[in-house]
Amino acid sequence: MLDFKVIATSTQTRARAGIIKTARGHIPTPVFMPVGTAGTVKAVTPDELKACGASIILGNTYHLYLRPGREVIRLFSGLHRFMNWDGPILTDSGGFQIFSLAKISKITENGFDFQSHIDGSRHLITPEDAISIQTDLGADIIMCLDECIPYPADAGTAEKALELTTRWARRCKTAWEETGRNGNALFGIVQGGMYPDLRRRSAEALMEIDFSGYAVGGLSVGEPKDLMMTTADTTLPLLPPGKPRYVMGVGTPADLVELVGMGADMFDCVMPTRNARNGQLFTSFGAVNISNARFRHDAGPLDPSCGCTTCARFSRAYLHHLYRCRELLSYRLNTIHNLYYYLHLMEEMRAAVRGDRFQQFRAAFYEKLDPDAVPGTNID
Amino acid sequence: MLDFKVIATSTQTRARAGIIKTARGHIPTPVFMPVGTAGTVKAVTPDELKACGASIILGNTYHLYLRPGREVIRLFSGLHRFMNWDGPILTDSGGFQIFSLAKISKITENGFDFQSHIDGSRHLITPEDAISIQTDLGADIIMCLDECIPYPADAGTAEKALELTTRWARRCKTAWEETGRNGNALFGIVQGGMYPDLRRRSAEALMEIDFSGYAVGGLSVGEPKDLMMTTADTTLPLLPPGKPRYVMGVGTPADLVELVGMGADMFDCVMPTRNARNGQLFTSFGAVNISNARFRHDAGPLDPSCGCTTCARFSRAYLHHLYRCRELLSYRLNTIHNLYYYLHLMEEMRAAVRGDRFQQFRAAFYEKLDPDAVPGTNID
Repeated sequence: MLDFKVIATSTQTRARAGIIKTARGHIPTPVFMPVGTAGTVKAVTPDELKACGASIILGNTYHLYLRPGREVIRLFSGLHRFMNWDGPILTDSGGFQIFSLAKISKITENGFDFQSHIDGSRHLITPEDAISIQTDLGADIIMCLDECIPYPADAGTAEKALELTTRWARRCKTAWEETGRNGNALFGIVQGGMYPDLRRRSAEALMEIDFSGYAVGGLSVGEPKDLMMTTADTTLPLLPPGKPRYVMGVGTPADLVELVGMGADMFDCVMPTRNARNGQLFTSFGAVNISNARFRHDAGPLDPSCGCTTCARFSRAYLHHLYRCRELLSYRLNTIHNLYYYLHLMEEMRAAVRGDRFQQFRAAFYEKLDPDAVPGTNID
Repeated sequence: MLDFKVIATSTQTRARAGIIKTARGHIPTPVFMPVGTAGTVKAVTPDELKACGASIILGNTYHLYLRPGREVIRLFSGLHRFMNWDGPILTDSGGFQIFSLAKISKITENGFDFQSHIDGSRHLITPEDAISIQTDLGADIIMCLDECIPYPADAGTAEKALELTTRWARRCKTAWEETGRNGNALFGIVQGGMYPDLRRRSAEALMEIDFSGYAVGGLSVGEPKDLMMTTADTTLPLLPPGKPRYVMGVGTPADLVELVGMGADMFDCVMPTRNARNGQLFTSFGAVNISNARFRHDAGPLDPSCGCTTCARFSRAYLHHLYRCRELLSYRLNTIHNLYYYLHLMEEMRAAVRGDRFQQFRAAFYEKLDPDAVPGTNID
């Protein structure tokens, strides 16, 4: 059971601030959800996630279904107790991960027939399975099984995929009504490739089925940035204003600023966590690569304006040293910083919307980006 | 500046409890020092080390000399501020690491001529260098450069190495008197292979030079366990009772119990941290391998009698899952548990000595080991 309330709307843009209420806690929006693929947001503990400002995290159904498997999760009555995270969790349906990681043998009307990327074992996941697995995971927000398509895809392929996604969405809704009695909420996923008319058709079909929230799927699949933004810009206004709008798998800090301005409420992305492990750190003046030799003798904090524990306690030289030695602590300290950066950015945007100064915030965000602040800074 | 005071002595064994006072804090003995090879105890933060009960940590001079290098450490006036650990630090001299990791080109009267195991670069480290580098590192306790020999070694080789070690010890003392003006203490290292008469000769020569503490080096280099114990047993009583006695690079929990009973005060070993990263976890009932399939469906804590945060918050099934997925969090949670286990074991031994019930403690320690507690438990 999910309750969403818009509490402020920007008069300058389509940005809005709201609250999603779940049984496990309130989620202020716009919100970024750190990705906890296999029952852990890589390198950090639940306590650290909270200290970074996370109000909800994402779990990947595909990974959790394969490892540890639903029967282990059932021993703990769900993912929360298994991983010791007591806040809300959103699980994806597994569709995107099957699309991007598994070896798909067949997509039929009935679902995905695929082989595990871990051990090659064969599995069939139907829309009903996707609901049932996510219900076992005990997620607070669950997603319909959808068919994601690569970019580029011709209109015929995109249309076929969206129609299958729509039929699956209907089956998911039915299955959820039959089994979703543990207080979770079900979201539909808009597909349609980069074709505005197909996006519209997908959105309208899903709204007719009626979900607790709507996601824009099939973005960030290889298309140029401006096409992604155009597609989001035309799709988001099609979705009902009284429901949360979730842009899946996106993106850079600037992407989030733009998409919030278009009215998006929810995001998830591996970028802050994955890039942290690759030494790319996000700062108020741009993204820096901590492996840059420039940092070797730099005793200052990574971002003097950052309030994270990494910046409070450790220097650029130390972070550079840890990363250069591939020390385990490097991945953690980097991840804490990047997650704090992303989550704090969302908090700043929420405050800007509440104060109806989102355009000023947006201008200041770009103003602060400064490739000269530290050599090697990348503002893209 | 180091002050050591024995505060209790076992009437049943040679075990004793004491306090080493340094400018950066008091160290209750017997003490275990977690190994922070490259400016970090792998996978954990300084805060976590303190929560696990660490009062002093060890840094490896060889690694730190190569990376980040002494000029980076100098920017921070030492290792403490670089790694954000404000407690005491002991650094080894680098000798053992050169012996075990580097490609040694030559050992001469003057020192080690070796090539870095990282980039093959060539370096010469003299006894004076070892003091100077450790002084730059800002360690509270520093060690003389010694020549470690492999096992087996004939008496002639062992004798030559101990004589070189003695001459180097004299040079280290002189260099320390000239440069060691920053409040650190210098320890000598007893060598002599597994030959009691050579161990005696080494100990007597070092005592004549006079150090703030004495280490037994050259153990755990491949010799059988009973030979290591015999060598420690005959060497430890040779050392002056008013100075700390440090057994380097040892060992298993049972080794520590035995060596404390022989009068050893200080230990360091990679075992709790390295084995944690390989999935071996120490418990009151023995060592278990968390990868064992037996743990997959086990929702209980790793060791119900353990007070660490890992055991308080996470289950065997979760630790098994994280390790199986080689998640970064696995290494951290395992390391926290093993360090807590080791440090708590030392605390229990200190309490047992203070209460003059060390033999009872020792008997109970072995009594609790139970290979049937969990299948796959190893009590060696």
